[in-house]
Order: sequence, then C-alpha cells, then structure tokens
Amino acid sequence: MSKILIFGHQNPDMDAITSAISFSYLLNTLGYDTEPVALGEANDETKYALDHFNHEGLRVIEKAGDETDTVALVDHNEFQQSVADIKDLNVFAVVDHHRVGNFETSAPLYYIAKPLGCTQSVIYDLYQEKGVEIPQQIAGLMLSGIISDTLLYSSPTCTEKDKEIAKKLAEIAGVDDESYGTEMLKAGANVDDKSAVEIADGDAKSFNMGGKEVRIGQVNVVDANDVIKRKDEVLKAMKELLINNNYDAFLLVITNILTNDSEGLLVGDDSLTKNLEKAFDVDVTDHQLALKGIVSRKKQIVPPLTDSFEG
Amino acid sequence: MSKILIFGHQNPDMDAITSAISFSYLLNTLGYDTEPVALGEANDETKYALDHFNHEGLRVIEKAGDETDTVALVDHNEFQQSVADIKDLNVFAVVDHHRVGNFETSAPLYYIAKPLGCTQSVIYDLYQEKGVEIPQQIAGLMLSGIISDTLLYSSPTCTEKDKEIAKKLAEIAGVDDESYGTEMLKAGANVDDKSAVEIADGDAKSFNMGGKEVRIGQVNVVDANDVIKRKDEVLKAMKELLINNNYDAFLLVITNILTNDSEGLLVGDDSLTKNLEKAFDVDVTDHQLALKGIVSRKKQIVPPLTDSFEG
Repeated sequence: MSKILIFGHQNPDMDAITSAISFSYLLNTLGYDTEPVALGEANDETKYALDHFNHEGLRVIEKAGDETDTVALVDHNEFQQSVADIKDLNVFAVVDHHRVGNFETSAPLYYIAKPLGCTQSVIYDLYQEKGVEIPQQIAGLMLSGIISDTLLYSSPTCTEKDKEIAKKLAEIAGVDDESYGTEMLKAGANVDDKSAVEIADGDAKSFNMGGKEVRIGQVNVVDANDVIKRKDEVLKAMKELLINNNYDAFLLVITNILTNDSEGLLVGDDSLTKNLEKAFDVDVTDHQLALKGIVSRKKQIVPPLTDSFEG
Repeated sequence: MSKILIFGHQNPDMDAITSAISFSYLLNTLGYDTEPVALGEANDETKYALDHFNHEGLRVIEKAGDETDTVALVDHNEFQQSVADIKDLNVFAVVDHHRVGNFETSAPLYYIAKPLGCTQSVIYDLYQEKGVEIPQQIAGLMLSGIISDTLLYSSPTCTEKDKEIAKKLAEIAGVDDESYGTEMLKAGANVDDKSAVEIADGDAKSFNMGGKEVRIGQVNVVDANDVIKRKDEVLKAMKELLINNNYDAFLLVITNILTNDSEGLLVGDDSLTKNLEKAFDVDVTDHQLALKGIVSRKKQIVPPLTDSFEG
C-alpha cells in the first residue's frame, strides 16, 4: 500500500482541513504512512485557527492518482464533493458525520460515521478507543472544528457529546472555548473583502436531489445586509457558476452567527423555488427567502429539501 | 422514535441472524428499545447454533413500515439485500463488514464498518467501547458468526483480530471453538435434504455490477459432487429464479469446507461468462468453472468480478 492521502471535501471548511490533520496524526501514531492534504485553499476562519495553533496548513491537490492509489476521506463521502479522480482510487477509510450518498466501493473498508456535530468528535472517540494522547496543537485544531461546525454550540447539529468533547479539548489546548471561539468565528464572518464568487461558492457543496444537481453555498456573517446589499452582484455570480458547471439550481444560505437566522438567495431551475417553498413553508420573493432559526445546511436544509425533491 | 427493528440481509446466514441478536442486546442494555428480527428463515447451520445456545430464534418479517419508522441494518447495507420497504424508513445505524454500495440516507446516522471477517467482530469492539459485558449465550452466538463467516478461520477474509476475538468469545461461551465450529459447519453442509432452489438461492445475494443485476449464491458442502451430481436440476432451478426475478445472471458458488476450493455454476447473460473468465483466468465449460482456493464471495469473487464488469 502506498502512502495514504487524507482529505476533506472540496471547498474545504475548518472541519474538512483540521479533521484531515487530526486523523492523519492518529493514523501515523498507529504506524500508518499518511499525509493530510486539502482539496482547496483554507478560508479565513481556518487560517485564523491554523495561525493560532502554529500549523503551517495543508498542501492543496486536485487529483490523487498520480501520487497514490489509496486515500481516506474525512468530513464527506459523496463522490461529487471529493477529489476529482476518486472513482479510480481505493478508499481505505471514511470518517464522517454526514448522510451517506453517492458513495460506493468494490471492497470492504473502515467507515466510521456518527450523527454528531463535527467529524472531530468522531475522531476524538477513535483517539480514546486507540489510547492515543492528543497533543496541544491537535487539540486546538479539533476544538476549532467543533466550534466552527456548531457555531459555538448554537447549531441544532450540536449534541451534548460535542460540547463535552470540546470542553476537554479546550483544556488540552489551553484556551477558553467561548472567547477563542467568538474571535475565530468573527474572523470567518467578514465578507467585505470577498468577491461575489467567493461569497457564493466559497463553502458550497453539490447535492443530488431527485436527479437534480443542487448547489448549496453557505456564508457566515454578523449582519445579513453585508451580503444582501450586494444581492445583484451575488446573484449574477451564482448564475455564472450555475451555467459554467451545469448545476440545475443554486441556493446560497447567508447565516447570521449572532442571531442564528439565515437568508436564502437562489437561482436556476424552478423546481428549487417550488421545493424550498414546500419544505420551509415560506414564499420566495425576488430570488430571496427568509430562513428563520435555520443555521445548519446538513440538518435543517438538506434533509427536508431532499425529501421535498424526492417526495 | 418508535421501536427500532434490527435485521441482517435477506436469505439470512449465521452472521445476519446472530448479529441482529448481539447488536440488539447491546443497544437494549444501553437503554434503547430494539427488537432483532430476520428477513427469512434460519438455515440449518444457524439452527444448530441457536439450539446449542438455547435461543428461540427470530421472528421473520418482510416489511418493517407497518411496525416502525426506524431500523438498524447489520451485516449488509445494499438496499437490494435489505427489507422490501427500506427506502421509506429511517436508518438509525449500520454495522457491517462489506463494501458500501447502493446505500443512501437523507440524514446523518451511525455507520460503523470495518474490513474484518465478520460483523460480530465489529460488534465486539462496540461492546468493549461501551463497557458492556457479553453474556454466555450472546458470546456463543457471536462466536458462531465468526466461525461461519471465516469457515473456522480458513477464509482469506479472516484477520488476526477475528481470531483473537473468537478465542475470547469461546472462553465466555464455554466451548472449544475448533470442535464446536467443525460440528456447526458440518450441520450446515448437508445438502441431501435440500431442494435445488434451496441450494441455489438459500444464501444468494444480488449485486449491481456495471448496471447488471448479478445474483450470487453460495452453498457449503463436504464434497462438491453432492451438488454436481444434481447439476441439471440445479441449473434448471437457477434459470427459473433468474427469469422470475429478472436477474441478468446467476452464479452459484459450491464451497468445499474441507479443501477450501469451490466450483461455480452459472446461467444467464453472456457477460457473466466473459467476466468470470476474465476475472479468474479459467474457462467456463458447460455452465461450470473451477474456482481453486476460492471460498469468499465477498473478498475473492465480488471485487474482481465487479472490476471486470465495470473495467
């Protein structure tokens, strides 16, 4: 077996990048030969955490097959979110906290997923199971993953277990989770320096819903107007991304990390409008809809929207 | 959440039935409300183990939706091997040791799979992780699962870990694994009282290979001639099963548990003949081929045959 490359999803967020780092550290300690890499550049929030815990960040790859035949996936499983040549590679392991979809192997593998708020909480259990001590730097990055994915414990995806694990990691990392977490989230919520494409697509993922490819982006803000004031520009960018990539529809979720509400912007196939209105019982007006109390793409948007598309 | 029904695959073998029992016992001890059930009658080998450890066996169901909305799958994940109405149900958990294929959920779940010889070895790890003691009866049934799936440690699917776990389970169960295992395997290898349909389809599973539905059955014997002497009758039964169920092709693997070799019988689409010859470098003559040293459908047949179909 050649060196195992470990990576999170395309358009990597904090969890995608830091889970590759923590899972790779665990496997290497157990005697495997692995390297954590990323399928895209770190975002501002992730850069803040990497800087804070003195990590140099990850090498970015587009294909894995010219370096190895074996990979491990963290924080995702759906092939359309993975490395371009995933179908030609052996998947050694998946560690994840998402639904399973469009994932298939020809051989048995390690597949460890739990319905927790963050991949790092699943990886924390693996450290405990294997009796491997978590170093300070790794603990800080794992904590950052949990804070990012749960919006500092406020997302409905956050379980009691995520919070307990985060408190233990904060102690090892030597930081106060609340104050560190708030600064970290704010570092990622500044959209003023971002282009419209970065806002729309920076954290976007593709989902297969009833045969349609639906692109769903999400951006954190401290005031939804930071994006809404640039609505025309952002919708135009979404339309171009849709046409260039043959998406059927594109939804951008603008999430206020202070109020825990979201606004949605959408373009593309009419079925998205129809299914959003059905799933959330709200009207779409001028490519926009209010998503009150909704912060989690994974738990509050993808399941009801998928059910509506396929129902 | 209503009561969780737990079951293994259709045409249940030892592992499918006993893993439902051991996983259900674990979850109930942890406070969940679950019931182990089966998607078919126990085979002779399984009946031997259930009798030996004084278990009354499982209730057989065809659909789950009229009793519950939530299920857990053991020893399988592919929907075509599962309960008829699987697509209408919430999957709470999967515990498995097979490849992942044709499995999809709309929500996150527990998915624990490892490339070990038997689902029971994965479940054993869960007992350890949760600190739950394994009672004598459950240990005996878990041991029976490992012996059955690994042909008493002789299959290439058997890992050192499976064997270590089996030895510990044998101690708890109070049996000698070698002598108990040999008797148990022999109880399942008597085909004289079986109809041709039972021989062909008793342990069969459907696989999607390059868009074709390939049915693969497997029967254990102590002498391949016990089946080959009834070749015409068995091929006729396979043809009827193929036509009635719209399979594209049907392969029956006759495995000698004493010599660890197999013979294959096949009917249906020419692509199966072509791909078997390509995958195993042997000639098919008169619907039959020799599979020297091959005992594992999962590890030695499905991966190379899938690759050949899709390559």
